[in-house]
Amino acid sequence: MPSPQDRFDPNFTSNVINAIGPACPPRARFVLSAMLKHIHDFAREVELTNDEWMAGVAFVNACGQMSNEKRNETHRICDVIGLESLVDEIANKHISETGETPTSSTILGPFWSPRAPFRENGGSIIDCPHNGHVALMHGRVIDLDTKKPIANAIVDIWQASSNGKYDFQDPEGQTDMNLRGKFRTNEKGEYHYYCLKPTAYSLPTDGPAGVLLRLFDRSPWRPAHIHLMVSHPDYKPVVTQLYPDDDPHLVDDSVFAVKDDLVVSFKPRENDPKAELDLEYNVTLAPKDASAKSQL
Amino acid sequence: MPSPQDRFDPNFTSNVINAIGPACPPRARFVLSAMLKHIHDFAREVELTNDEWMAGVAFVNACGQMSNEKRNETHRICDVIGLESLVDEIANKHISETGETPTSSTILGPFWSPRAPFRENGGSIIDCPHNGHVALMHGRVIDLDTKKPIANAIVDIWQASSNGKYDFQDPEGQTDMNLRGKFRTNEKGEYHYYCLKPTAYSLPTDGPAGVLLRLFDRSPWRPAHIHLMVSHPDYKPVVTQLYPDDDPHLVDDSVFAVKDDLVVSFKPRENDPKAELDLEYNVTLAPKDASAKSQL
Repeated sequence: MPSPQDRFDPNFTSNVINAIGPACPPRARFVLSAMLKHIHDFAREVELTNDEWMAGVAFVNACGQMSNEKRNETHRICDVIGLESLVDEIANKHISETGETPTSSTILGPFWSPRAPFRENGGSIIDCPHNGHVALMHGRVIDLDTKKPIANAIVDIWQASSNGKYDFQDPEGQTDMNLRGKFRTNEKGEYHYYCLKPTAYSLPTDGPAGVLLRLFDRSPWRPAHIHLMVSHPDYKPVVTQLYPDDDPHLVDDSVFAVKDDLVVSFKPRENDPKAELDLEYNVTLAPKDASAKSQL
Repeated sequence: MPSPQDRFDPNFTSNVINAIGPACPPRARFVLSAMLKHIHDFAREVELTNDEWMAGVAFVNACGQMSNEKRNETHRICDVIGLESLVDEIANKHISETGETPTSSTILGPFWSPRAPFRENGGSIIDCPHNGHVALMHGRVIDLDTKKPIANAIVDIWQASSNGKYDFQDPEGQTDMNLRGKFRTNEKGEYHYYCLKPTAYSLPTDGPAGVLLRLFDRSPWRPAHIHLMVSHPDYKPVVTQLYPDDDPHLVDDSVFAVKDDLVVSFKPRENDPKAELDLEYNVTLAPKDASAKSQL
């Protein structure tokens, strides 16, 4: 029996690819040609019907129409299908000469803000009332190769409040930049601040992402997590998330962003009137000019 | 040297596919699994960068945000990448027992209207002023297997005016249903009506389709064409387009919808005060219950 590919015009896809003109930049030609081939192969393999294709068109339009400054539904769909995690892996695969790896990266997600304020070490990112548990989070930022501390690294943290909402999406009205902050490491590479033990939340299911998750018969929940972006001019930055080890959604994260080295233990904290819990987390960064086999 | 696929987590894509739950319908599981595999393979093959992925997200959002009741930019993007032509081929591949084929189908495009009025045979679909050339279009609708005429077939025609605009997209204000009409074939399977020799036009380039066509370094032009949808309850309907043989864009149609048997010759028409030109076109339909090897 012939394969689905053989039943159709064998030249159609190459005709579409060969229609690309001479002024198309080489990288765009490479990426777009691969995209065309995969889309066409997909359609032929599944013998995509007209109704299925039109449903896809309506789905894409709905993603754009639901997106605005505060919500990026297409970004969320990419998370749900694992694409952001995959792009992150492609960009950040890094193994040192001795086989060591820096702190794992994971997806940025749609809630990072470029406007997060600098705060003082030892300060708190909690500006608004909440029903959560306060933790002192602290640790060091260190060099993957030398193991020496990195001073003046920036630790940018953001997290949802105890109701599972980030500042700008909360109908209960958190103030702008609640639970966001940037901290600079000291001479010993140390940072410390007060934050919340994070709370699990569901992706919004009132749009196309909800439609897709229901069709997939998958959970919309993310495990509780703290977002971190750690950077220094001399190092490859890391965007990552930390997950409490007691979260039931570690095994079925709706966006495929959990990695083993990012699962952490919150401990009880004694003699601190400001916090019930303690979280130590050290971040390892790879030097930018490393002889390391970056992306190999 | 390892292939790009080998450098990344070999289990990631199967993990995402295996996360599909038991309540996902079998066809959706099949289509979505293939979609996930192709999207992931694409990203790994081209080592899709974060900036490229984010540009893709913004592009998809822009498609949805530009679409409305009168404009479907995502549909247009599918045309530009050849997907609608491919879906059409997959749906309509039909070869009779003797190896004959019915009239070729091609894409519907975004301009068909379900509200086109029935008009009398011999009437005109031209309701508004224009700068085009009027043609009498006529022919028969016949059975692929018996070659007998098909009475009471519906010939639904739609076309752009001489300015390249369809009724509902024309800023110069064509009346609703100008250059649209449905006709029923008589007992001899015949239809005839007055229409325009069609005019080539460019796809709108003020949105994402224009961005993509410029990146592809491709022409946005479509060859001049008349759209037809011919149907009868006992036959497989055909959606198609006819192209004048003197159009320079036959070779670089921006939506890959030209097929050899759809290229036609307009002839001079004598002694008809209503028309300068004459177009004869016979349409062949395949019976629905045919022993033909439908879709084989």
